[in-house]
Amino acid sequence: MDKIFEVFEKVRKESPLVHHITNWVTIYDCANIVKVFGGSPVMAHAVEEAADMASIADALVINIGTLSSRTIEAMKLAIAAANKKKIPVILDAVGVGATKFRNDTMKDLLKFRIDVIKGNASEIAAAAGISVTTKGVDSGHVSGDMMKIAKQLANERECVVVVTGKEDICTNGESAFVIKNGSPMMSQIVGTGCMAGSVIGTFCAVEKDYLFACIAGLVCFEIAAENADKTSEGPGTFKNKLFDKISTLSDISINKMKHVEEVR
Amino acid sequence: MDKIFEVFEKVRKESPLVHHITNWVTIYDCANIVKVFGGSPVMAHAVEEAADMASIADALVINIGTLSSRTIEAMKLAIAAANKKKIPVILDAVGVGATKFRNDTMKDLLKFRIDVIKGNASEIAAAAGISVTTKGVDSGHVSGDMMKIAKQLANERECVVVVTGKEDICTNGESAFVIKNGSPMMSQIVGTGCMAGSVIGTFCAVEKDYLFACIAGLVCFEIAAENADKTSEGPGTFKNKLFDKISTLSDISINKMKHVEEVR
Amino acid sequence: MDKIFEVFEKVRKESPLVHHITNWVTIYDCANIVKVFGGSPVMAHAVEEAADMASIADALVINIGTLSSRTIEAMKLAIAAANKKKIPVILDAVGVGATKFRNDTMKDLLKFRIDVIKGNASEIAAAAGISVTTKGVDSGHVSGDMMKIAKQLANERECVVVVTGKEDICTNGESAFVIKNGSPMMSQIVGTGCMAGSVIGTFCAVEKDYLFACIAGLVCFEIAAENADKTSEGPGTFKNKLFDKISTLSDISINKMKHVEEVR
Repeated sequence: MDKIFEVFEKVRKESPLVHHITNWVTIYDCANIVKVFGGSPVMAHAVEEAADMASIADALVINIGTLSSRTIEAMKLAIAAANKKKIPVILDAVGVGATKFRNDTMKDLLKFRIDVIKGNASEIAAAAGISVTTKGVDSGHVSGDMMKIAKQLANERECVVVVTGKEDICTNGESAFVIKNGSPMMSQIVGTGCMAGSVIGTFCAVEKDYLFACIAGLVCFEIAAENADKTSEGPGTFKNKLFDKISTLSDISINKMKHVEEVR
Repeated sequence: MDKIFEVFEKVRKESPLVHHITNWVTIYDCANIVKVFGGSPVMAHAVEEAADMASIADALVINIGTLSSRTIEAMKLAIAAANKKKIPVILDAVGVGATKFRNDTMKDLLKFRIDVIKGNASEIAAAAGISVTTKGVDSGHVSGDMMKIAKQLANERECVVVVTGKEDICTNGESAFVIKNGSPMMSQIVGTGCMAGSVIGTFCAVEKDYLFACIAGLVCFEIAAENADKTSEGPGTFKNKLFDKISTLSDISINKMKHVEEVR
Repeated sequence: MDKIFEVFEKVRKESPLVHHITNWVTIYDCANIVKVFGGSPVMAHAVEEAADMASIADALVINIGTLSSRTIEAMKLAIAAANKKKIPVILDAVGVGATKFRNDTMKDLLKFRIDVIKGNASEIAAAAGISVTTKGVDSGHVSGDMMKIAKQLANERECVVVVTGKEDICTNGESAFVIKNGSPMMSQIVGTGCMAGSVIGTFCAVEKDYLFACIAGLVCFEIAAENADKTSEGPGTFKNKLFDKISTLSDISINKMKHVEEVR
């Protein structure tokens, strides 16, 4: 965990191209967080160009927050191209569990190689095939041990699973870590979850150890959130300062503030 | 009008799920304002899931700011599901009067049960079948008495009609109120009108007296705007502080600042 | 160049209706920048109303940042209506050069009369038929003299060409100007390029000398950016202050800060 800042520096140095097919609600925030971290975001959802764009990208972020049948088609074409190019594919399982359509879409997309599955507790539980009560795109109640569910899903899918929440779980099925950074403000505005997915995509674009890339990205993002919270007057100013505080992240602040625990 | 804060507290306590099918311009702001007020927003416009999502929601907000034939189809499916579940349906008549397509869409959607029709002066006049000159989505000139037009539309459609502007009209056809809160800054940025519709949906989700819910939501939103205006340096910082100031609304400030007059 | 402020004042006085068919990433920012400058933005991408909306507008901004086949259809209908009404059409060539689909779309749209073609260096080079290496929607490397390329494209298409970057080029093929205003922060957030296109549309709506309108709009926008940069703490607060600083632009500050050079 000493090399978190190194991954961030690599993002700034290499400025990876991160292709997104994402939702219409937080699409700007997803693009902007990549840019502010030093990456180069691109959003292209047309079936005619989704594969071509993925083919010149360094990572692909798929977020199913808002869907349409055409967009799903584009997602499949982009993932296939990303798989072929062997760039990391991040799947943000927004709202899985809320409707049959989302569950079916999730199943469909999981037929491809996905490198990181990310969601809140009820989304990951639903993705793992566990019956959950959800509340749209906000997490509902999950009975059961999320760590166990996450590890099982990671093992089954041979991928990294990230469960975001007050504390985040990152696991590849074997190793598992809990991140205790972040601020309560993050759950009081729309978009922090989606942005976390884009940050993960950006970090995976430059660091082949995807488990570590996920942890590094989340730690940086959430330390920035802690710093933003300290000087904000409410959810509006918090969100702006979140972007400000990414640009002032330093090796020292990350090493001092990072709060990651391996779970054995 | 003494119980406005009680409705706001109910929103925070119950955190209602507010389903939107809205426009692509202000979709983030619509979601975020619901979240900041304490509700749980969800946006889902696919025809395959619009009805399912409405079926687990506590209110449905339809905003026709940007349209496509597929989205209109989804709107109808969602409204039908909402009508079946008897949750409030808010229709924000953005741009009605500007094109034949919007007028036709409005007529189509009004075949369903709509609980609150909301718009600016020219949109409500156009919805009432009065010929208006519009300016895209900004209000054009309306000749005639808006209070009379609003009451008539409310009576015809057996719903609540909300006309936003420098002063807002809320009427169920019988009772009518004018809200004199708000700030001139609200008309200098994009999105305050759409956010007002989402706030109305959030408040109607927890308060069955929809007329009172509309008034309560607008008063809270507009007092926050007044407070934001006081400390902002322009339209950019105003918008952020608008979100900040919602989280600091108190019983005392609302009762002191509210400016609602019944019109007889 | 003494009359830049006069064009801005005309925008505020006439509040032109600026119709956009734009991308889903920066659609809010495009609308809001028009509003904050004093114009009246409208976004309508349905094929059923694109032409009708263009017919009541004072300018049309086409931005191909995110595309779909239906939206392209709507763009063509809107441009045809705008050409018929003889209102200015601005084409923001976002991402041209990145995929075959964007290149083909660009060619298709250039069959209509376009009054201003705008893009970054690699987009304009690609639009001019020069082979470029692009990086999604960010500018890639262009070998060759951009001024020459821009002039040639302007002559060929009989239009104004705007190349944005650290320094901007504005040319009608005959006269050519370089704008040296702006702040490095502009390239550190998403949306400033798209907003520049919307500002150009707003200024062209009230000033028939499109070359001068482009220069005037860009100078105002970029001086606001300079002023925002001075007091911002990072990319988040910068963006908000950018909107604030538009509302405080004055004749004096523009004349003092404008940095435009004619290139002979």
